[in-house]
Amino acid sequence: MKLTLETALCEQFRIRYPIFLAGMAGGPSTPELTAAVSEAGGLGTLGAAYMEPEAIRAAILRIRELTASPFGVNLFVVRADDDYTGIRDVQRELDKVRDRLGIPRAAESNVTSPNLFHQQIAVLLEEKVPVISTAFGVLPEPYMSEAKSAGLLVVTMVTTVKEAQLAEQAGSDAVVAQGSEAGGHRGTFDIDEQPMGANIGTMALVPQIVDKLSIPVLAAGGIMDGRGLAASLALGAQGVQLGTRFLTAAESGTNPAYRKALLASDEQSTVLTKAFSGRPARGIENAFIREWNASGIAPLAFPTQNTATRDIRNAAAKQQLDGYLSLWAGQGTRMLTDGQPAGEIVAEVLEQAASIIH
Amino acid sequence: MKLTLETALCEQFRIRYPIFLAGMAGGPSTPELTAAVSEAGGLGTLGAAYMEPEAIRAAILRIRELTASPFGVNLFVVRADDDYTGIRDVQRELDKVRDRLGIPRAAESNVTSPNLFHQQIAVLLEEKVPVISTAFGVLPEPYMSEAKSAGLLVVTMVTTVKEAQLAEQAGSDAVVAQGSEAGGHRGTFDIDEQPMGANIGTMALVPQIVDKLSIPVLAAGGIMDGRGLAASLALGAQGVQLGTRFLTAAESGTNPAYRKALLASDEQSTVLTKAFSGRPARGIENAFIREWNASGIAPLAFPTQNTATRDIRNAAAKQQLDGYLSLWAGQGTRMLTDGQPAGEIVAEVLEQAASIIH
Repeated sequence: MKLTLETALCEQFRIRYPIFLAGMAGGPSTPELTAAVSEAGGLGTLGAAYMEPEAIRAAILRIRELTASPFGVNLFVVRADDDYTGIRDVQRELDKVRDRLGIPRAAESNVTSPNLFHQQIAVLLEEKVPVISTAFGVLPEPYMSEAKSAGLLVVTMVTTVKEAQLAEQAGSDAVVAQGSEAGGHRGTFDIDEQPMGANIGTMALVPQIVDKLSIPVLAAGGIMDGRGLAASLALGAQGVQLGTRFLTAAESGTNPAYRKALLASDEQSTVLTKAFSGRPARGIENAFIREWNASGIAPLAFPTQNTATRDIRNAAAKQQLDGYLSLWAGQGTRMLTDGQPAGEIVAEVLEQAASIIH
Repeated sequence: MKLTLETALCEQFRIRYPIFLAGMAGGPSTPELTAAVSEAGGLGTLGAAYMEPEAIRAAILRIRELTASPFGVNLFVVRADDDYTGIRDVQRELDKVRDRLGIPRAAESNVTSPNLFHQQIAVLLEEKVPVISTAFGVLPEPYMSEAKSAGLLVVTMVTTVKEAQLAEQAGSDAVVAQGSEAGGHRGTFDIDEQPMGANIGTMALVPQIVDKLSIPVLAAGGIMDGRGLAASLALGAQGVQLGTRFLTAAESGTNPAYRKALLASDEQSTVLTKAFSGRPARGIENAFIREWNASGIAPLAFPTQNTATRDIRNAAAKQQLDGYLSLWAGQGTRMLTDGQPAGEIVAEVLEQAASIIH
C-alpha cells in the first residue's frame, strides 16, 4: 500500500481532494463556506439540521450559484419527540440566565420542537443534493432507497465499529469515523445506551473501523492540517472531514465572540456537555456550562433542551457574549488560522499532506 | 519533509527502530518483554514503579543478560504521602470484595505506602540504565542533573502542551505525548488541578506538542500497528510508545484472566477510573469498577487507594478473576494479537509502516 491523495473516494464523490467540510449547524455553516470548500476541490457541506425546509432550498440554490462542484447537506436523524420531564426546574434555571441577558422569561408552552426531518429530507431529495450526510443515525428508509435510486451519495457519521457496520449494512456509501477529539455533537446513535456518547480517539477508532468495512472511511476529530490528513490516510482512511479548522475561515458564519474564544483557546479548553442541547457535544467550557453543572439539574432530552436554550443562544449571539453561546470546538484549536479563506485552507492542507507523503 | 522510519530519535537513543515499549508496571512488565523489544531494535522499558529497589536491580541484571541493546526503566514521580481521609468508608467497601474473594479483611493500619522513589532512582543511576522514563511528572533535581552528567537519557510522559514545555525546560531528552486513547494511568502531572487527567486525543495532541518543542516527541495512545506508527510520523512524532499491543505478547507477565479479557474486548470496553489507584487510568470496565462506582464512595488519593486495593488485586490475580484485577487497556484492543513474540510484533509494526510510507 502506498499513500496517495487521490483515493477511490475522490472518484466516487467526484471531488479532486479527499477533504469534506463538517456540517456545523447553527451559525458557522453558510452557503458561502460550503461553496468555497467545494470550489477548492473538497466537498463542502451545509449544516442544515436546524434550518426550515424552505431556507434549506434557498441555501442550496445559493450554493449552486457559487459553484458547479458537488456538495453535501447534513441533517440530524431525529427520532424523539419533546420530553417535558423536569422542564420546570430547567426553565427556572434558564430564567436566571435570561434575566442576566435581559430577555423575557419563557413560558413552558414555548418549548415545542417541530420535527422538521421529513420535510428537510424531502427538500434534499427534490433538489437532488449530490451528497446527503447524517448524524445521530443512518438515513432511514424509504429515504435511503430514494436517495440511492436518484444517484445521490449517502454518508453516515459513526462513533463505534458497530455503528459503522450498521451504516454499511443500511446502504451508506461512506462513513465518517468521528473520534473523541471532534468538536460539536457526538454522532453516537443511541444516547439512551451511551449517555455521553462513545468517545474513542481518532487514532484508535479509524483503523478498527477500516478493518471491518468495505466502504470508504473518512477520519474526523482533531484533524486540523496536512499532518492530520496524511496521518488519517496512513490509518487507512480514504479522506478526512474537518469542522473546527473551518470555524475561523473567512466565509464561516461563526459569531465574532465565538471566533475570539476559539482563537484564545487551547487543547485543554473543551469539555463534553449536554447543557445546551440534551445531547453530548464538545465545546469550549464557558459560563453557561459551568453554571449549568453547578445547578446539578439534569438537562432535558434532545431536542427539548436544545429548543429550551435557543432564545438564550440567540440573545448571546446578538450581544456577542461568548459565555452563553455554544462554543463547539475540537481539541486541536492551537492549529486554527484566523480569517483565512476556506479555499486557501483546503489548498494548504493538501500541500502540506503532499509534502509529507510524496 | 519526507517520512522516514530512521528518525533522529533512533540515533539519539541508539536504537534501530522508533518504537518504545510502555512501562506497564504491576504484572505485564517483565525483563523478558523488555529485552525482547530492545533485542528486536526498539526500546524495551521495564515498568518498575511498584518494584522494590533490589528487585529493580535484579531485573536490570536479567535484561542485560538477555540483550546488549539499550533499554529503559520507567518510574512514577510520586510526591504525595498517604492521605487517610475517608479510609474507613473505603475499607468497609473493600471488605465486601475481600469477603467475596475469601481473603482477610484489612486493618486500617495495613495501609502504608512507603515512598520508594528515591531508592528506586538511586538504583537506576547506580546501574547506569540507558534510558530513565517517568510518568506523573518530570524527573526532579538533583536526579535529572545526575542522569544527564552520567550520559543517561531522560524521557517524560506528558498529556498537555504545557506539561511538554515543562519537561523540555527541565532537561528531558524526549517526551511521550500520551493521548486519551492510552491504557493505564494518565500521565497528567497535577491531579489536584485535573482530577480525571487531561484527555486529549492523540491525533490532536501530537502536532500541537510538536509545534512547541524542539526535543523529539513520541506518540502514545491508540497506536497498535504499522498504520499507527506511520500516522504518528505524519503528525510530526519521531517515534511511538506502544503499551497495549504488547500486553498479549508471549513474553509479557499479563495474568491469563487479564489476557482473556483483553482479547474479548473492543473499542468501547474501557473507562477512565480512579477506583483501583486513586489516579485516573484507562482499563476495561469490570465488576470492581462497577461496584465501586455504585458505592458512591470517593477513592482515596494516590498512592493510598492503590495500596489499599493491592491485596484484592493480588488475590484476584492468584484466583484468575478478571472482575477484580485492574485490566488496564487502551482503545485499540480489536487490533491485539494473541501470544505473539514481542520481537515479531516490533518487526510486523515496522514492516507495515514501511509499506505505507515507502
